[in-house]
Amino acid sequence: MAEESASAAEQAAAIAAGSLRSVDLVKRFLDRIAAGDEAVQAWAHLDPDYALRQAQQRDDQRGSGLPLGPLHGVPVGLKDIVDTADMPTENGTPLDAGRQPRQDATLVSRLRAAGAVILGKTVSTELAFYAPGKTRNPHDPERTPGGSSSGSAAAVAAGQVPLAVGTQTNGSVIRPASFCGVVGYKPSHGLVSRHGLLSQSPPLDTVGAFARTVEDAALIVDAMAGHDPADGATRPMARPCLLQTARAAPPVKPSFALVKGPTWDAADADTKDGLAELRDFLGEDCDEVTLPSAFERAHDLQRLLMVAGFAKNLAPYYEKGRDRLSDVMRAAIEEGRTVLAVDYALAEEWIDVLNAGLAEIFERYDAILTPAAVGEAPQGLSATGDPTFCTLWTLCGTPAITLPLLQGAAGLPIGVQIVGARGDDARLLRSARWLAEALAVEDG
Amino acid sequence: MAEESASAAEQAAAIAAGSLRSVDLVKRFLDRIAAGDEAVQAWAHLDPDYALRQAQQRDDQRGSGLPLGPLHGVPVGLKDIVDTADMPTENGTPLDAGRQPRQDATLVSRLRAAGAVILGKTVSTELAFYAPGKTRNPHDPERTPGGSSSGSAAAVAAGQVPLAVGTQTNGSVIRPASFCGVVGYKPSHGLVSRHGLLSQSPPLDTVGAFARTVEDAALIVDAMAGHDPADGATRPMARPCLLQTARAAPPVKPSFALVKGPTWDAADADTKDGLAELRDFLGEDCDEVTLPSAFERAHDLQRLLMVAGFAKNLAPYYEKGRDRLSDVMRAAIEEGRTVLAVDYALAEEWIDVLNAGLAEIFERYDAILTPAAVGEAPQGLSATGDPTFCTLWTLCGTPAITLPLLQGAAGLPIGVQIVGARGDDARLLRSARWLAEALAVEDG
Repeated sequence: MAEESASAAEQAAAIAAGSLRSVDLVKRFLDRIAAGDEAVQAWAHLDPDYALRQAQQRDDQRGSGLPLGPLHGVPVGLKDIVDTADMPTENGTPLDAGRQPRQDATLVSRLRAAGAVILGKTVSTELAFYAPGKTRNPHDPERTPGGSSSGSAAAVAAGQVPLAVGTQTNGSVIRPASFCGVVGYKPSHGLVSRHGLLSQSPPLDTVGAFARTVEDAALIVDAMAGHDPADGATRPMARPCLLQTARAAPPVKPSFALVKGPTWDAADADTKDGLAELRDFLGEDCDEVTLPSAFERAHDLQRLLMVAGFAKNLAPYYEKGRDRLSDVMRAAIEEGRTVLAVDYALAEEWIDVLNAGLAEIFERYDAILTPAAVGEAPQGLSATGDPTFCTLWTLCGTPAITLPLLQGAAGLPIGVQIVGARGDDARLLRSARWLAEALAVEDG
Repeated sequence: MAEESASAAEQAAAIAAGSLRSVDLVKRFLDRIAAGDEAVQAWAHLDPDYALRQAQQRDDQRGSGLPLGPLHGVPVGLKDIVDTADMPTENGTPLDAGRQPRQDATLVSRLRAAGAVILGKTVSTELAFYAPGKTRNPHDPERTPGGSSSGSAAAVAAGQVPLAVGTQTNGSVIRPASFCGVVGYKPSHGLVSRHGLLSQSPPLDTVGAFARTVEDAALIVDAMAGHDPADGATRPMARPCLLQTARAAPPVKPSFALVKGPTWDAADADTKDGLAELRDFLGEDCDEVTLPSAFERAHDLQRLLMVAGFAKNLAPYYEKGRDRLSDVMRAAIEEGRTVLAVDYALAEEWIDVLNAGLAEIFERYDAILTPAAVGEAPQGLSATGDPTFCTLWTLCGTPAITLPLLQGAAGLPIGVQIVGARGDDARLLRSARWLAEALAVEDG
């Protein structure tokens, strides 16, 4: 197996064992980018020489016998709304052209401490909302890669980097991962610090990861997770040890609840049929469960929290250059300015109410199966597709992962979203890995 | 010294040593209430037999050799917005007449665990806002005791109980303590859990204590403080050990900043002259410090957060019986319903901005001296007096304590408010105790 197509965990192990140099690994990824990125356009900032210098430093560190982190020498891409002290961070808007942060975001410091090489910054949609960037879907350059973490999803899908960081405030990790055919993992809200990231809506904003395996997604989130006093949503607690649990065999065969959710009708036949097949495959280990009617409010609640957050957090952009914002961004900010404080507070309270409803499901089932997206990546580059199947889980702050298990009529990948109880990320990843392996055995 | 006029700390020590029975102590306080409360009307709920049964249980526990808490056998009064599983909690409104909570508030569980006897529930104004309850000022029955923690302040002032719990969302601990001539201590926001209390405005609501000495205030807050997962404003951290620090000698002579604040002009001559004398007494250990102009926004910001909180948290009262709310309460709720989410979020952000401004003062001075109230308790029982000198410190979440150091033209007490850096309660209490002792020596 070529090193660049091995998993990130295997790459880290090979570097640690001395059988692979970080410089060689990074060089191969840079070669792939040079060869193929003209069609994909995943990167907002890429300095190959600087990436190689970081890799050389990692190799030197290993050579000098220093202890190595779990990502030592492995390249990582960062969505260009994550502040980096050594690279620009332009947040997908010309209003931040050339913006150079003074400090690394907390998660960047943690990735560096784990030994990662920050390969470059990946394309975000405008201010991580709907207006697309330049990135195209690696499976079909006439289709959107999804958004807002467009470049992170596309770069991992194109084999340009083994791991990438994204964020989700509505459907910005799970949807592009589904469209691009990679693993997308949105951890529980508050597991990874947002300090040093573009803030859209604090009760919703969630850091996520793109990878090619469940274990790799666990590996990178393990490195980023933990309490950060600068982000009040994070809590002091023991590290979750996601990778260790994800790798473990489930104590009993996992059980799944197929949840169609309040917007099932929006799903394509490909998606509906694929989930029906998956349910058949799981047999008695999967029941269809209907959510109480209260969940029909979720989309309105998420919208209210999100646009009110835009109105407050994106106000500097609106003040500085509303004429250089897209119409969709400007309208959302203006919508947000009309939200009442009392409605906002009530919407926040609903998050716990809905999670109490989900708790009844998670008492009986290990995880929920539900669509990751409407279907294949839609044609065209003027929009990034519908996030509707992600909205509820972002609002609830539940951990979610999409696996590229299905294929649509046009031959493009479609993800299946697996959702766990808020705070129970490790069990979700273990169930997801079990499912991926069970299906691989079946395929084999 | 009669046991009931000893400090709570002395009472607890005597009970622990076996020289005083809790039953005898509680009986003497009940006798004082029976003899004098007709004029004061401090209690919303008082069941003497039940209080004596609790005391008997404390004596039995001591007799059986069980370990004793720091408040073992000492009676405590609770503002009637603090839920108690064994007494009604009516929140100062006829809409909650006869309301019997199923659970103790977290702070009540902690007081019981520390050995306290819950003597009864003290009168709150209507929903802890402005509309007065039945309580009168013990120094003059034609004057208000202040609010909203009216009964707690008056009961301690009348010698009916050594310790009482109140809350402050604007000026509801410091102001009544000043009017009634007792020590009132509002800890840092988040030090004591509000779980199980009437919620008005989470960024402002703060639990406080009434006592006759600084040490007693430290004693009861030590017992109540600490992390509570049910109140997101509390944080996991080591216990503050307030009493230990309050009792210690300051490592150097404390220095004070006299801060007149944005509403100094509202202060009476009594208050202004008293603070000038205090400044002269402290000499070179006290400088007048002017706050930056940004602090002039504090009153508007506090009002916005408070009324928006009313609109959300008191909505059930408004829906159920707005005709049985006072005009002032109804108008505040209606004002709160117009607050925009974006303005609310910005106001919350100002809390940290203003604390950053205060940090510059606390780098040079141990504590701030400032008025606790406009002056003596005003005449009449139809209003509870002006909280204006408390508003800024409630907004900032800084710890504050008022000491009954001054006397007005009518011979009534006036407090001096001492304010510390947010989170630095122990140093504030140490400085306050030092000041009280320095003045007592001077008086002697």
